[in-house]
Amino acid sequence: MDLKDLFKDITNLAQKEVTVEGWIRNHRDQKTFGFIDFSDGTTQEHLQIVYDEEIPNFNDIKKMLVGCAIKAVGTIVKSSGKQAYEMKASKIVLLGNCPEDYPIQPKHHTREFLREQAYLRPRTNLFQAVFRVRSIAAYAIHKYFQERNFVYVHTPLITSNDGEGAGEMFKLTTFDFENIPKTKDGNIDYSKDFFGNKVGLTVTGQLEAETFALAYKKTYTFGPTFRAENSNTKVHASEFWMIEPEVAFCDLEGDMDLMEDMLKYVVKYVLDNAPLEIDFFDNYVEKGLKNKLEKLINSKFTRIDHEDVIKLLKEAPVKWEFEPEFGEDIAKEHEKYITEYFDGPVFIKNWPKDIKAFYMKQNADGKTVAAVDLEVPGAGELMGGSEREADYTKLKTRMEELGIDPNSMDWYLNLRKYGGCVHSGFGMGFERLLIYLTGVDNIRDVIPYPRTPKSCDY
Amino acid sequence: MDLKDLFKDITNLAQKEVTVEGWIRNHRDQKTFGFIDFSDGTTQEHLQIVYDEEIPNFNDIKKMLVGCAIKAVGTIVKSSGKQAYEMKASKIVLLGNCPEDYPIQPKHHTREFLREQAYLRPRTNLFQAVFRVRSIAAYAIHKYFQERNFVYVHTPLITSNDGEGAGEMFKLTTFDFENIPKTKDGNIDYSKDFFGNKVGLTVTGQLEAETFALAYKKTYTFGPTFRAENSNTKVHASEFWMIEPEVAFCDLEGDMDLMEDMLKYVVKYVLDNAPLEIDFFDNYVEKGLKNKLEKLINSKFTRIDHEDVIKLLKEAPVKWEFEPEFGEDIAKEHEKYITEYFDGPVFIKNWPKDIKAFYMKQNADGKTVAAVDLEVPGAGELMGGSEREADYTKLKTRMEELGIDPNSMDWYLNLRKYGGCVHSGFGMGFERLLIYLTGVDNIRDVIPYPRTPKSCDY
Repeated sequence: MDLKDLFKDITNLAQKEVTVEGWIRNHRDQKTFGFIDFSDGTTQEHLQIVYDEEIPNFNDIKKMLVGCAIKAVGTIVKSSGKQAYEMKASKIVLLGNCPEDYPIQPKHHTREFLREQAYLRPRTNLFQAVFRVRSIAAYAIHKYFQERNFVYVHTPLITSNDGEGAGEMFKLTTFDFENIPKTKDGNIDYSKDFFGNKVGLTVTGQLEAETFALAYKKTYTFGPTFRAENSNTKVHASEFWMIEPEVAFCDLEGDMDLMEDMLKYVVKYVLDNAPLEIDFFDNYVEKGLKNKLEKLINSKFTRIDHEDVIKLLKEAPVKWEFEPEFGEDIAKEHEKYITEYFDGPVFIKNWPKDIKAFYMKQNADGKTVAAVDLEVPGAGELMGGSEREADYTKLKTRMEELGIDPNSMDWYLNLRKYGGCVHSGFGMGFERLLIYLTGVDNIRDVIPYPRTPKSCDY
Repeated sequence: MDLKDLFKDITNLAQKEVTVEGWIRNHRDQKTFGFIDFSDGTTQEHLQIVYDEEIPNFNDIKKMLVGCAIKAVGTIVKSSGKQAYEMKASKIVLLGNCPEDYPIQPKHHTREFLREQAYLRPRTNLFQAVFRVRSIAAYAIHKYFQERNFVYVHTPLITSNDGEGAGEMFKLTTFDFENIPKTKDGNIDYSKDFFGNKVGLTVTGQLEAETFALAYKKTYTFGPTFRAENSNTKVHASEFWMIEPEVAFCDLEGDMDLMEDMLKYVVKYVLDNAPLEIDFFDNYVEKGLKNKLEKLINSKFTRIDHEDVIKLLKEAPVKWEFEPEFGEDIAKEHEKYITEYFDGPVFIKNWPKDIKAFYMKQNADGKTVAAVDLEVPGAGELMGGSEREADYTKLKTRMEELGIDPNSMDWYLNLRKYGGCVHSGFGMGFERLLIYLTGVDNIRDVIPYPRTPKSCDY
C-alpha cells in the first residue's frame, strides 16, 4: 500500500500486517537488529522499519544499501522512537540493488551539486517536497477555476503571432541548416518550411484566451511559455509555465478581486494539503515561511494608483539607489518598500501607458492604462493583469503607434467588433508562485528539468 | 450571475430578479414583444429572454442583432414554451454591438467554414460543447490521478534527447538563418546556438517521467507534445496533448488495471458533468454516442496476447485487405474485427519485440516485449503502454542493437542501476480521447487552434 494511505489510517492499522514497496533512504544495522528509514515517495513522511535476527535472510538485509528498492511486509506497532508508529518487519525482499557510489547519500548535498544530478534529486527530502508542492499547487489552480465555471483552454504553443511583441521568441523549423531555401529575391523562403510561414514558440496564451473569454465568459490557460532571452538570473528560465485567466464582463476591479481570491485559495490549499512539506521549508529553507503564507491568507490587499505610489516613494525617508519617477517603472527596492509600508500585498494600478502593452485599456486621462501589478511581501511582482482595450479604433490606433501591423492580427481586433465587451485578465508565472510557496529562491530548483541559456540537459 | 449557477438553482430563483451578461444567439422580434435566445457560455443551456412594449428602449432592443453583448435584468418566470423557465426582462442594455455581417449566424455552418473562423467557432453550439468537454475531461484526468497519490510532473518541452527515436522532431533555434555559424571543419556550430547544443521539441515526456516514478512511485504528465510529420489526416496534428502516467512497482497487469480504471473514471466523469453536451453530440454528431460511452463504463476489458489475436484473425471468416501475420502490426480492419468479436475494449499484449520501442521489457521468450495497446470499439487504439525494461544490461544491449548511443542517455540507464524496480506506464493522446468522447472525427475540430502541415494561424 502507499505510505500516504498508511499514515492516513495509521491508528486503525496498528497491530495489522501491511506490505509496502519503496526505497531505503537510510540504514542503521546493529549486531542483532536494524532500522531502515523507508520512503515510497507518496508522502513526505518516512516509515521506520525495524527488523531483528528472527527475520529470514537477516544477513542479506543488513547489507542492503541506501537507495535500494525493497518490499517489506510487517506489523504496524507503536514506536519507542521519535515517530508514533513503526513497522516490525517479518519479511524484507530486495527488488533493486544500489551500489555504494550512489550519489544521493543521507547527508547534506548542495543544491548546485543536486542540479547536476537532476534526475536523482527528487529522491532527496528537499526536492521531494518542492515537486510535490508543484503538483499540489497545479491541482489547486485547476480546482479553483473549474469550480467557478471557468473553461480550461489549451492555447497553441507553436504560433505565427509574436504575442505582446515583448518577449524574444525561439524559432521553430524543419529546415536543413546546411541548405536553407531562398526565394528568387534571395530572402529566406518560409513557404518551404513545415508550416509554410515563419513560426516560433509562444510567449503568452493571452490573446487566444481572449477569444475564449468572449465565448465562454470565463476561461483560463495553464501551460508552458517560452522566452529566448539571454538572462542568467535566479528568476529567469527559457521554458516555464503560466496561468492566464481571462474574464468577460469584468473590469479592473473585478480582475483584482479574482487575483486576490485565487492567490489566497491556492496558498490555503497548499497549506492544508502539504503541511509536512511546508513545515520542512519552514525549518530548512526559509524560517517564517509558514507564518508568511498564513498572514497572506488573512491580509487585506491594498489597491493604489501608480501615481500615488511614486508620490509616496518620493516622500519616503529613504535614499534610493534608483530615484522613483512619474511615468516610469519602479525598481525592486521600491516594491519592497511599498509592501512593507502597507504591511501586506499591494495592487499597483493605472500605470503609465508608454511602459505597458498595446492591448491594455486606455484610461480617460490619456496618460495611463488600466493595468495592475500585484506586489507581494517577500516575492515582489507575482502577477500582472489589465482590463483589455475594448474599443476597436483605440486599439487599432495604438497598434499602429507601436508599429504592430493590425492586418496581422485582424482576428484580435475583430473581437472588439463582434459583440465585444469589457473584459480583463492576468498572468501568473507558476514558478514565481512556487518560489514564494517554498522559499527555494532559484527557478532552476522549482522546475524538474530547467532550460536556461547554454543549458538543456535531459 | 453565471447562467450555469442560474440553471442549477432555477426553481429557487422563480419570481426573483436576476442580472445576466452574455450574448444574443438568436432574436425574434414581433410587433409588441420579442424573444432573445441568450447564452453566456458558462453552460450549454441558453436562457430565453422575453421583453415587451413596457420595457424602456423597446425600439432599441428590437434592433439588437445576433452576436451583440448585452446585460439583461429581469424576473425568472415559468415559460409557456419548450423550456421550463424564462426571463421576463425589465431592462436590457447593449454592451457591445455586432454588425449584420457577423459570420456566426443562427443557421447551419459547415465545420470546414468554421475552421476558417477558428476564433469565433467556440460561439457555436457544437464547438461550445467540444471545448467545454475538453476542459472537463482535462480536469477529470487531474482529479483521477491526484486523488490516487500521483504526482503531476511537468516534463520539459525543449529537449536534447529524441525520445523514442520514433517521432520526427521540430528544431528549435535562435540562429540567424541568413548566417548560420559553422565550425572550422565546416559543420553547423551548435555551440553558438541558444542552448549550446542541438535541441528540438519533445515527442514524449515518458523518459523523464520514469525518473519521477522512481522517486514518487506514482507520477503522470499532462502536457503538449509535437510531431514534425508531414501527415495530413483526420487524426494527426503537429501539436497535441498527451497524458503519460508512470508507476513504480507495477507490472504489465497493473498497468492494464490502471488504464482501464482511468478510462472508465474519465468517461463517467464527463457523462456526469457534461450531460447536455453529451446529449448534443448524441443528437447531432454521432447517434448512439451516449449509449457507447455508458456501455464502456460497464464493460469488461478483454486481455489477449498479440499472437492469439493473429491466430484469431487468421481463422476469421473474413477476406482481409491486409493479411494478418505473426510478428507484425495489425491494421485498422483487424482492430475493428477484434473489438467487435469481443464486443468491448480489448488489451492486445505481448507484442513482437521488433516492431516496438527499445525501452519495453523483453519477455522470456526472446521474441516479444511486455507492451500493450488498448483497442476500443469505435475509437481504435486509444492508449499504448508497457512494462519498462528494468535490466540494465538488457536495456543497454537493445539500445546498441537499435543504434541508440547509450552514453547520450546514461541517466536513463542509471535508473536501472540505482534502486531500479519493475515499473510500467502508458500514453494516451488527449485528442484521441476527445474524438471518442464527442464523436467529432477530425482532430482539427477538438483542438482550439490546430497546427498541421502548412497550417499555423493565430
